[in-house]
Amino acid sequence: MSELRKDPIVDRWIIIAAERGRRPFDFKTEPEPPSSEGCPFCEGNEQTTPPEVFALRDGGPPNSPGWRVRVVPNKFPALAIEGELVRSGIGRLDRMTGVGAHEVIIESPQHADDLPTLPADHIVDVLSTYAQRTCDLHRDERFRYTIVFRNYKAEAGASLSHPHSQLIALPFIPELMKEKLDSAREHYQRKERCIFCDLLEQELELSDRIIYRNEHFVILSPFAARFPFSVEIYPLEHCHDFVAMDSTQQYDLADALQYVLNQYKTTLSNPPYNMTLQAAPNTIPRPGHPDYWGTIAYDYHWHLEIFPRLTKMAGFEWGTGCYINPVSPEDAAQHLSTNSQSLEAD
Amino acid sequence: MSELRKDPIVDRWIIIAAERGRRPFDFKTEPEPPSSEGCPFCEGNEQTTPPEVFALRDGGPPNSPGWRVRVVPNKFPALAIEGELVRSGIGRLDRMTGVGAHEVIIESPQHADDLPTLPADHIVDVLSTYAQRTCDLHRDERFRYTIVFRNYKAEAGASLSHPHSQLIALPFIPELMKEKLDSAREHYQRKERCIFCDLLEQELELSDRIIYRNEHFVILSPFAARFPFSVEIYPLEHCHDFVAMDSTQQYDLADALQYVLNQYKTTLSNPPYNMTLQAAPNTIPRPGHPDYWGTIAYDYHWHLEIFPRLTKMAGFEWGTGCYINPVSPEDAAQHLSTNSQSLEAD
Repeated sequence: MSELRKDPIVDRWIIIAAERGRRPFDFKTEPEPPSSEGCPFCEGNEQTTPPEVFALRDGGPPNSPGWRVRVVPNKFPALAIEGELVRSGIGRLDRMTGVGAHEVIIESPQHADDLPTLPADHIVDVLSTYAQRTCDLHRDERFRYTIVFRNYKAEAGASLSHPHSQLIALPFIPELMKEKLDSAREHYQRKERCIFCDLLEQELELSDRIIYRNEHFVILSPFAARFPFSVEIYPLEHCHDFVAMDSTQQYDLADALQYVLNQYKTTLSNPPYNMTLQAAPNTIPRPGHPDYWGTIAYDYHWHLEIFPRLTKMAGFEWGTGCYINPVSPEDAAQHLSTNSQSLEAD
Repeated sequence: MSELRKDPIVDRWIIIAAERGRRPFDFKTEPEPPSSEGCPFCEGNEQTTPPEVFALRDGGPPNSPGWRVRVVPNKFPALAIEGELVRSGIGRLDRMTGVGAHEVIIESPQHADDLPTLPADHIVDVLSTYAQRTCDLHRDERFRYTIVFRNYKAEAGASLSHPHSQLIALPFIPELMKEKLDSAREHYQRKERCIFCDLLEQELELSDRIIYRNEHFVILSPFAARFPFSVEIYPLEHCHDFVAMDSTQQYDLADALQYVLNQYKTTLSNPPYNMTLQAAPNTIPRPGHPDYWGTIAYDYHWHLEIFPRLTKMAGFEWGTGCYINPVSPEDAAQHLSTNSQSLEAD
């Protein structure tokens, strides 16, 4: 079983997921099946995955064809769903048992599909699956945070090309999220305003980092972007968590996602990318529980982050936590906005 | 000129280094010259680099052959050495001018050399160059922190294979370092002991994560390592900064470095790796200056971090700041210790 270990100096949990029987020198990833025939995520191959935990189906019993979106446990999970959450120390060191959930959201039965080219209804099915799985997992008192993410292409960490996302439910709030929550809370306590709403207001006024907007969402090129052409998608109206979206909002998010992922394809020659949902932590109240986020994080403002993998991380980035971005966010915004497509041919 | 931008939510500075005239779509790195003939770092090609700022020489004038270690400004610097440090805001957003230093430490005149196979005297020359350049740059009041790092092989971010390290002097203390300094200070204020010394004491007692030690240094497999087979090298005796090393200590550090880098070669088939020196910040006192680290960081304990690049970062890591390490640090320690080399052939 995996083990969670806390860094004794910086506030960071690490998942030590040493697979039983795997030799520590074996870092080659399994070669991908050359066609859809051997793909475990394709319709008709349902028996080759662990049994599904959720599906949106037009018909058929579980683990058979007839689904639109299907969720299965990851075959090589980083954390195990079974087991008690036990905290222990070794002198000055802190650890807990590696309990959590690690699921794969198969976005379509068709191998050759891709998220941004799916019909809007189908993208909404995927988004709604993210929300339903998160809500279900947050009924489990052991889990404090669920991160949904999408790795596109091998260079971005995808081991299979069949369209899919993943989620990992964690028994702690990860470092980056804690920083964001702290920042939002501190601002709210001082000003009684949401820090994200304040920033969005200014960005909309300045407008040089706005890539796209529809009724409910805006796509931003972040002022201090870590990576070239990275974007953030925010709901325009304050909302702490994505699971609260109604159907109209889900359609608008699908539209925004389609917009930016298609822009990546045309403007940046279909690059590998990572997408992560920066959702609120598990907000189910636990009366009497000494939880860090005992109060519901209403002062947070959820968002999505997407970044193409165009640059390499090296010693400087790993050693400092600081990043060098070779493209100004204003240039990136201009190139990702439809009306400046012609710039590409400059 | 570059610009430094602060993330408005998390405590992180980003270097926006949009190169003039570079098209934002051009992410191809220049192909490396196929042999040593076209290599700008080779002896005899001194005129193809910017003029040297430092060298250890057996003879010859600057920018001619005869050097053992040579330091030149990076031809494509992330920050510019000239210019005033000007802070400004755009409403709620913070930025400063991109001043700093970005230098290349050419470790040997010979193209085919490699740090761990150099004679001990020569490695000490390299370490002493790190220290001398850091001290020199820290006389500049604009610079708060200098990070020295080494990228080995293209997969770890090296654009030339000729043996070299780099340093970047920054007008701020980077996030990761600030967390370490805060942690050390907090512990010291509570206990009047160094947190690193306390941890080292326990690690030496437990011994299952100790890889190697000599008189002055110990190589650890960190309890909560972010990456498989990553190591940390600590001076056994408390010392806040590496520039304070005497010659005996430099020889012992050279020995430890040689040990671990040679172990990587034999045990992990010569993997790409990053090395970063986790030094103290610029500790030259600035009377009357409202500096964050106005007091000298004597409670800090410097160290080196080295990690082979064996795994891929994906959405989970970028979205959470949490890492999945597939090799237990105890296994890694065992495999990197000389006396268990035979395990490799299990």
